[in-house]
Amino acid sequence: MKKITLILFLLMLSAVSGFTQTIQSPSGNFSLSFKLSEAGEPVYQLSYKSKAVIKESKMGFEIKNQPALLKGFIILETNNSEKNETWNPVWGEVKTIRNQYKELAVTLQQIATIEPTSTTVANTDVFNSSNDASAKVPKVTRKITIRFRLFDDGLGFRYEFPEQSELKYFTVAEEKTEFNLTGDHKTFWIPGDYDTNEYAYNTTKLSEIDASIGKKATEIAVRALFADHAAQTPLMMKSGDGLYINIHEAALVNYPAMYLMVNRQTFGLTTHLAPNAVGNAAFLQTPAKTPWRTIIISDKATDILASKTILNLNEPTKIKDTSWIKPQKMIGVWWEMHVGKATWNYSDTNNVILTNTDWKSLKPNGKHGANTANVKRYVDFASKNGIDGVLVEGWNVGWEDWFGNWKEEVFDFVTPYPDFDVKELQNYAAQKKVKLIMHHETSGSASNYERRLDEAFRFMKANGYDAVKTGYVGKIVPRGEYHDGQMMVNHYIHVTETAADYKIMIDAHEPVRPTGLQRTFPNWLASEAARGNEFNAWSVGNPPEHETILPFTRLMGGPMDYTPGIFEVKMNRYDANKKEQVHTTLAKQLALYVTMYSPLQMAADLPENYEKRSDAFQFIRDVAVDWDDTRILEAEPGDYLTIARKAKSKDEWFVGAITDENSRMANISLDFLMPNSQYVATIYADAKDSNWQNNPTAYEIKSYLVNNQTALKIALANGGGAAVSIKAASGDDLKKLKNY
Amino acid sequence: MKKITLILFLLMLSAVSGFTQTIQSPSGNFSLSFKLSEAGEPVYQLSYKSKAVIKESKMGFEIKNQPALLKGFIILETNNSEKNETWNPVWGEVKTIRNQYKELAVTLQQIATIEPTSTTVANTDVFNSSNDASAKVPKVTRKITIRFRLFDDGLGFRYEFPEQSELKYFTVAEEKTEFNLTGDHKTFWIPGDYDTNEYAYNTTKLSEIDASIGKKATEIAVRALFADHAAQTPLMMKSGDGLYINIHEAALVNYPAMYLMVNRQTFGLTTHLAPNAVGNAAFLQTPAKTPWRTIIISDKATDILASKTILNLNEPTKIKDTSWIKPQKMIGVWWEMHVGKATWNYSDTNNVILTNTDWKSLKPNGKHGANTANVKRYVDFASKNGIDGVLVEGWNVGWEDWFGNWKEEVFDFVTPYPDFDVKELQNYAAQKKVKLIMHHETSGSASNYERRLDEAFRFMKANGYDAVKTGYVGKIVPRGEYHDGQMMVNHYIHVTETAADYKIMIDAHEPVRPTGLQRTFPNWLASEAARGNEFNAWSVGNPPEHETILPFTRLMGGPMDYTPGIFEVKMNRYDANKKEQVHTTLAKQLALYVTMYSPLQMAADLPENYEKRSDAFQFIRDVAVDWDDTRILEAEPGDYLTIARKAKSKDEWFVGAITDENSRMANISLDFLMPNSQYVATIYADAKDSNWQNNPTAYEIKSYLVNNQTALKIALANGGGAAVSIKAASGDDLKKLKNY
Repeated sequence: MKKITLILFLLMLSAVSGFTQTIQSPSGNFSLSFKLSEAGEPVYQLSYKSKAVIKESKMGFEIKNQPALLKGFIILETNNSEKNETWNPVWGEVKTIRNQYKELAVTLQQIATIEPTSTTVANTDVFNSSNDASAKVPKVTRKITIRFRLFDDGLGFRYEFPEQSELKYFTVAEEKTEFNLTGDHKTFWIPGDYDTNEYAYNTTKLSEIDASIGKKATEIAVRALFADHAAQTPLMMKSGDGLYINIHEAALVNYPAMYLMVNRQTFGLTTHLAPNAVGNAAFLQTPAKTPWRTIIISDKATDILASKTILNLNEPTKIKDTSWIKPQKMIGVWWEMHVGKATWNYSDTNNVILTNTDWKSLKPNGKHGANTANVKRYVDFASKNGIDGVLVEGWNVGWEDWFGNWKEEVFDFVTPYPDFDVKELQNYAAQKKVKLIMHHETSGSASNYERRLDEAFRFMKANGYDAVKTGYVGKIVPRGEYHDGQMMVNHYIHVTETAADYKIMIDAHEPVRPTGLQRTFPNWLASEAARGNEFNAWSVGNPPEHETILPFTRLMGGPMDYTPGIFEVKMNRYDANKKEQVHTTLAKQLALYVTMYSPLQMAADLPENYEKRSDAFQFIRDVAVDWDDTRILEAEPGDYLTIARKAKSKDEWFVGAITDENSRMANISLDFLMPNSQYVATIYADAKDSNWQNNPTAYEIKSYLVNNQTALKIALANGGGAAVSIKAASGDDLKKLKNY
Repeated sequence: MKKITLILFLLMLSAVSGFTQTIQSPSGNFSLSFKLSEAGEPVYQLSYKSKAVIKESKMGFEIKNQPALLKGFIILETNNSEKNETWNPVWGEVKTIRNQYKELAVTLQQIATIEPTSTTVANTDVFNSSNDASAKVPKVTRKITIRFRLFDDGLGFRYEFPEQSELKYFTVAEEKTEFNLTGDHKTFWIPGDYDTNEYAYNTTKLSEIDASIGKKATEIAVRALFADHAAQTPLMMKSGDGLYINIHEAALVNYPAMYLMVNRQTFGLTTHLAPNAVGNAAFLQTPAKTPWRTIIISDKATDILASKTILNLNEPTKIKDTSWIKPQKMIGVWWEMHVGKATWNYSDTNNVILTNTDWKSLKPNGKHGANTANVKRYVDFASKNGIDGVLVEGWNVGWEDWFGNWKEEVFDFVTPYPDFDVKELQNYAAQKKVKLIMHHETSGSASNYERRLDEAFRFMKANGYDAVKTGYVGKIVPRGEYHDGQMMVNHYIHVTETAADYKIMIDAHEPVRPTGLQRTFPNWLASEAARGNEFNAWSVGNPPEHETILPFTRLMGGPMDYTPGIFEVKMNRYDANKKEQVHTTLAKQLALYVTMYSPLQMAADLPENYEKRSDAFQFIRDVAVDWDDTRILEAEPGDYLTIARKAKSKDEWFVGAITDENSRMANISLDFLMPNSQYVATIYADAKDSNWQNNPTAYEIKSYLVNNQTALKIALANGGGAAVSIKAASGDDLKKLKNY
């Protein structure tokens, strides 16, 4: 890394406001400027291809019981540097990732008058030579560093608080980072909410963002809307002149999640942080840093999806031996509960107490899904079909009244229901070479989970489990905390790090939305943290465009356990009175295994539904979960998406193409195939008369010989999609199959 | 237990307000009446020797998002019963405890209109057949049972919420139990505070209680005063006609601590509960019960101290094998930090981060107390003097900035400082037959402690530790919680129960004040939870009367680790500039081993100070820590106290007599000794010219022959005291010693 220290020069200029630092991205596409305003406010501005995308925007913080860190700064030091390196993720969409950027780090100093504050914490009752007397200083001198990294697809910046004598322990009351946009962009958004990301997406002008729409979303378990003009990140926008702009954050550690408050007149966005139980945002100790704020921009939508900037801004893996981390497919005793065939709970009583109830004496309701025989059925199916794992939900006591009571002690994570034989299933699964996957629903009670975590993980390892799906459906305990606050952000990481100590992989449901931490903690295979396929089973569901928006929003931060692969699309197959349905065709469900990236993919439907359509299920058997390469072929948020991916260490490709409620033709040039080689492409497409509403399960499967000159054209039905597997052609294939 | 069910009879009377139920205590001294007012309010009244002590007082609750449970009740059922049994504590002041009471249990029903409330918790995102739809019922029928137990020294009562369909999960917003007193009693009180019991006691009229005095107590680490006219319990009062009245609670489990709000006009007290982070008091699920509210009354002060009512109202031990629980004496690397000779912290840096700091590279400050050589010195002293344990504070990393920063991760409880050799000390202590006692300061971060608790206890057992002193000096994390709230109440019990699983004994500092739970969890040997001797080392200290009040207040709930035995009374012996001193004579420090009951007693001063006065230290070597019998001989709160105790399974007695700032004569009849036996009484008394201010360390030690006809008269200096050990006389004694 090249460092050019300009201290002396800059100290001379430090009192001169308006002096602007500018850097260009490696390709020159982007230009980032930084200056201090006349009032000493930090201000940045970002241009793409010589046009402002972020107008002059202020930066800084409100600090509890201290003057704000917003103005009155001088520049102490400026450092320019650059990096160009490659690295290999433990698993991912590509084998090798380039990390190339130009960096500008500006260290600012502010001298402010501090008024003495009364505080509950008075003197210590003990003699301690290291006590801090700084609270009585009438003037306080504080430093922050703002570090910008300018990539060829956008910008990341963060605030750093160096170790310093007059800023040691402090509480961020609010972050005031602005993103002042240049127009009233088309925006794909969900309401700002401290507790959930499970809203359906809205597509409106920026000025039309109205989070109060979230009040109607009663299908979501726990909501904490906080302002009308607030949106979650990742926020995806498209400008009138065709620029795609994505704002999110990277490496959210020891800090609350960030929301964007919308000024509907100026099109300015300002950060807001999730509060803790007493209304503060972040408790920090210097040296400290915020997460990176990311702005990814391109005039091509496909570039947004190909961006690795959020991953590049995360720290390398902290896990030294990663050999035990395995991308995988799973099925689960799960969807049958969502469709109402079975229950999580063993009994229908509803007033149990974890530590007092005699679980063996409860009267079974006869519908408990996680019983030994039923789990064996799933194990058999997994074994027969090359599925790695079987998730079992509802195996442990506590489901009788787990939801909505804000109880602290709901589950103990180690006591099975009487009809779930842990040891027998361990042996059975081992014989069948299938791994059982543990489930730890916390009901939102993180304090209870942390207390029992070690015992729970020891129980898992003693019984052959290597992966756990965690769940946070409920208001958080410690009461007053939110899913997105600093304490819970640290909780998810604590669980993940502890899991790594036990060589356990994590699939977190209802956590804060991801920010690329899977690079640092590659045992964190996936998260939900958005509106998953399950909503289609029992609510208004997810509109056909939903899966064309998620990759531009939620998945910018990391893999999603969306649970695709629903073949029995209409819920009236289970109960004639039900009107719910999955809002896609069956072929689109297959395409999602490619378009919705995750190293942990569920084949979410019931074994019997797959057995009925074993030909279509072949794609799920075949599709990879880890990749050497990924090509975003076509993309428009809210409309369509076509992605091709090369399986890890194999000359096999898989393509997924999806559309929204409108039918369209997917154009798929196979120029990524090896030259002079013949392949078989098996196309799983919507049937001609298929559409998501009336005929969702009609599909056609055809195989052709293809090569790198081939361009597939596949018709996608309304709400439809197509999946293609491409493998090297055998001699037999060459004889039997026609060219495309 | 005799049960007389009066259902039919009472149902007939249920609409008749004013119908009064009355029970008498076994001896007939007490009379308790209960009725419903015209508005259907529960009302109780308590008389002693035919005179009202508690006038008619209302009872009930405010419930969050529901109608209050205060009025509109009818009586559903009344049950009378009685009990007379004895039981043996695992350890205690006496060998056998009688539990004798008359009981009245009244079950009340209320039918109230409930208005629908909006709530953040909406529908579940899952199908669950057991969901509760009761929230939409326009009328709600709820039952509570009020259970009174009337003993011969007072009353206990609690509220029970039976399991019922329309009251399952609910939140107590406030408890409204009244204690309407008959006059403006003399009261011994400390301010109501959610976080601390470390105030010095005030003695005023009830109407003069003004908790705002607590604002000046800057020597206390963390304070959370909440109202001007609020006091902590145990609250000790004395009426104008000489009645002693003590109000406290028993068996505080899964509920917040109770405070008393004082109406200075009517002399009425009303309960207030410690809130949680979002302002609620208790989250309950039926069946549920509150702690017992206790009122102990006598016309003799000694009866108050002899009462076992609070213990009787607690549940029997939950620990089956108690053989590993051992009352004991300890010394500790501790006082030398309080007097400024040593530090808890290893280094004088003050910006460490638990998980990042390289502790081995820190520059030692040269004053670190918990170093291997120094600990060995304490082990040697303990071994030589028959002291069971050596507490070591400051052994583990994190003390550099542990205090006052509201940090979540301060200590990990398993990493020693570089100069503390865990294995070497384990071996050394074992050779010397001394047990090292672990220290776990949490800095108030209960969440961090719970997360690390199992690992910490495993570390203890692996390194030979059987007991731990826990500490909660700091604002609580989860932030917004208080030391006295429901969550922390459950935390202390969780720690104690987990410790029991590991066969570990607990000495909790800065927890909620005890409520007799040592009966249920006898591994919870002691707590601090009051203003300990340590305050004398570095603050205005504890006035001479302090130790005459504590047994009537804080110790009513359970043993206190007061850390008596300070021989070097004046702090100017350590530093000529220091003006602090212990506000007692040396002889009084000895007396405290008897007057201040605890099965865990510290010899708190430094080994070198004991070696200088080895003759006086003999009393500490000799004194027992577990007892067959206890006689409260003389007592007046705020003035004086004389107690005699018989050592467990030995014919040895120990007497302690203390006075306040006034000198007095202690009159000690030895009629408790076995008849026709000769004993040697060794009297450790203040010297003639001794007084706490100017000559605190002058003492006389004399031995006499005594028997059960002897009456000792011992002069106690201003702020003084006396200690007496009484053992069977040997043939040699009979020859050498004179009769008293």
